[in-house]
Amino acid sequence: MSDGSGRFSRWAGGAERGDAARLEAFSDGVLAIAITLLILDVHVEPEHGQSLAAALLASWPQIGAYAASFLQIGIMWANHHTLFRTIARVDQLLLLSNLFLLIFVSFLPLPTRLVAEHHLNDADGRTAMLLYGGTLTACALAFNLIWRHAARRDLLVPGISAAFRRDVGRRYLLGLAVYLVSTLLSQIHPWITLALTAVIAVFFLLGPSPRQAVEIPAD
Amino acid sequence: MSDGSGRFSRWAGGAERGDAARLEAFSDGVLAIAITLLILDVHVEPEHGQSLAAALLASWPQIGAYAASFLQIGIMWANHHTLFRTIARVDQLLLLSNLFLLIFVSFLPLPTRLVAEHHLNDADGRTAMLLYGGTLTACALAFNLIWRHAARRDLLVPGISAAFRRDVGRRYLLGLAVYLVSTLLSQIHPWITLALTAVIAVFFLLGPSPRQAVEIPAD
Amino acid sequence: MSDGSGRFSRWAGGAERGDAARLEAFSDGVLAIAITLLILDVHVEPEHGQSLAAALLASWPQIGAYAASFLQIGIMWANHHTLFRTIARVDQLLLLSNLFLLIFVSFLPLPTRLVAEHHLNDADGRTAMLLYGGTLTACALAFNLIWRHAARRDLLVPGISAAFRRDVGRRYLLGLAVYLVSTLLSQIHPWITLALTAVIAVFFLLGPSPRQAVEIPAD
Amino acid sequence: MSDGSGRFSRWAGGAERGDAARLEAFSDGVLAIAITLLILDVHVEPEHGQSLAAALLASWPQIGAYAASFLQIGIMWANHHTLFRTIARVDQLLLLSNLFLLIFVSFLPLPTRLVAEHHLNDADGRTAMLLYGGTLTACALAFNLIWRHAARRDLLVPGISAAFRRDVGRRYLLGLAVYLVSTLLSQIHPWITLALTAVIAVFFLLGPSPRQAVEIPAD
Repeated sequence: MSDGSGRFSRWAGGAERGDAARLEAFSDGVLAIAITLLILDVHVEPEHGQSLAAALLASWPQIGAYAASFLQIGIMWANHHTLFRTIARVDQLLLLSNLFLLIFVSFLPLPTRLVAEHHLNDADGRTAMLLYGGTLTACALAFNLIWRHAARRDLLVPGISAAFRRDVGRRYLLGLAVYLVSTLLSQIHPWITLALTAVIAVFFLLGPSPRQAVEIPAD
Repeated sequence: MSDGSGRFSRWAGGAERGDAARLEAFSDGVLAIAITLLILDVHVEPEHGQSLAAALLASWPQIGAYAASFLQIGIMWANHHTLFRTIARVDQLLLLSNLFLLIFVSFLPLPTRLVAEHHLNDADGRTAMLLYGGTLTACALAFNLIWRHAARRDLLVPGISAAFRRDVGRRYLLGLAVYLVSTLLSQIHPWITLALTAVIAVFFLLGPSPRQAVEIPAD
Repeated sequence: MSDGSGRFSRWAGGAERGDAARLEAFSDGVLAIAITLLILDVHVEPEHGQSLAAALLASWPQIGAYAASFLQIGIMWANHHTLFRTIARVDQLLLLSNLFLLIFVSFLPLPTRLVAEHHLNDADGRTAMLLYGGTLTACALAFNLIWRHAARRDLLVPGISAAFRRDVGRRYLLGLAVYLVSTLLSQIHPWITLALTAVIAVFFLLGPSPRQAVEIPAD
Repeated sequence: MSDGSGRFSRWAGGAERGDAARLEAFSDGVLAIAITLLILDVHVEPEHGQSLAAALLASWPQIGAYAASFLQIGIMWANHHTLFRTIARVDQLLLLSNLFLLIFVSFLPLPTRLVAEHHLNDADGRTAMLLYGGTLTACALAFNLIWRHAARRDLLVPGISAAFRRDVGRRYLLGLAVYLVSTLLSQIHPWITLALTAVIAVFFLLGPSPRQAVEIPAD
């Protein structure tokens, strides 16, 4: 915002921090809405003669699916937050990669509902879990696209160490691989997918790297 | 925010960048919600004896309509973002033009649902697609109103080149014309509308002009 | 944000601009969501043998109610925006008055749905419109509470002229009176309420005062 | 944002104010959406031969539950707002505690719906109110976790007085105890839970402490 030329360098393919701010705000909005809409798909309706307590116990797959997807989206938000603090500029392809992420995040309530509605022990349960895992895998792919594009086109804030870049690149690729394998394992047993995707999400809560992004010079 | 007189010049018909910021935040909110609500209209319910996999395949028109509208709103957000970086001040008519845009964006889930629910080969399909295209055309009209009003009333940031203004004016008008023609072609075949509106949306991803908004003087 | 004492003066009953910022962000969120949720209540379902075009024409009361409530919330947002630019500090009572506004704004989708669903020519139509008008009247009351409290407790930014304060106080009171009368007239004919509340909303689009909030000294 | 080392100290386990800002924005989003979605569960549908006025009167439990939950979430927002003004830095555990709060806030529409749908005088009413009170108790627990973690790990802004910390710690613990007792009393009579939780919410509107967070030195 300091001078006119910086403000509009974006038009020529460049961009500045301000762009990332509104991209983050829009992404925060979509993630916050997707995470909050999940509860709309949880229905607890006692059948005739059934007590509410029994109906609540019977609806645990819905409540479990709600909690699992809340965890996934919540941790994706934390990762998005952390990732974009290393990104200084936004170009059209980064914006498109981010839209690619958001379309799958906002799609997640549908497979969540399908997982909750179907018995996980039969063919339909495997189909539902394949779609659920596939959607999470697409999100992991989008994170890889965002990071790789930002790193290659030099959209990062200056001074990020090579070791940090390597860490993030490896972890994101590993994450994608685990999500993909978890998804395929749904065809053996759907529970494996649910368990593995929860484990990998918690792993990502640790952040993309144990290192500092920028080496802090010893004063 | 620098002095008291600037802060309130808006009351006298003027305004400052701060106004645009809250307008952008509100618009981001509406766009993020509209884009995330789209999934609520996608229902996959296997009929008796049908597998979930078959039901998912059968629901591709709903999922396709979801993706098409996500693309339209996502790219509108990107355009809104880009457009408002050239706008320095907001007056009541600009605010009204923006509300005009938002009413049609937040209306889009309805025609999207209608397009998904009707066979596109009969009269109802043509009606649904006419409403879908018409809603997008109204959005394109709103973008033209916002730009033309801002350019005429001198609400733009200083120093925007005449060539840039000409570019944006022409592209927005061209966009409006293509959306209008796409809408009318729904009466020949609905698929033409869906394809053409997707093409024009992707075209707008390139941004409103290949030029720089402000000529950067060679130092 | 400049020094620690300013940061926390709020705990002692005072507050600073920063508080207003988050209050505005939360209010923007609630207003943006309420305005976007309206479309979820518009259903167009052709009856057996009816064409989609005929069903759309038959659903005009729903689409009309959608547009009317969109207008009301959109203009309330614009007013909220304008009002809070004169407010420098927030205390617990202002926060409570703002929650009072938001509860009625977020309640508006219910009376909107009822207005759309009932024939406006019979007793149920009058009941629906009484609730719709009453909800808008409560919003107008909340705006009066916010303004009066802020003006009396001196929460305004410094230098706001007496003439400006008088203007805002009068207009908000007049607005409340017109909303109240419109609501009562629903018992004579519901259409009067719909028309009058739309007129008063458009009137508020002009802003709370034609004057400048702060006299700009001639240099 | 002043220098590169501050910007990334977060990667090494530290963090800065900027992190709290996006955490607040995301939390504001989730709270704003949860509060606005509540109205979607209020349905007023006259039975055959019933007037709309009679149906509205009959739906008072739904409208009352809507208002009670709106009050709870609105005041939680105010508390979250106040609490985070004392927090300077964010680490992964604080982020997780905040997600723990948000999962229960966004879950609240479900017990609200169950409370509205069941007669509070029988076993199902007690079950519904147990879930409602339990959800609020979990929110109170999350506030305690956030505060205790921030205070112990020294994530607070500098200069917060010991007396202030003691106040907040005690009040949050008292709040948790009252929510827990209110929840258990649902098994005696559900109305006690509804009344007590409303009283404790209004009490929290007064803020976490009557003291100033930072002693303002007498100049």
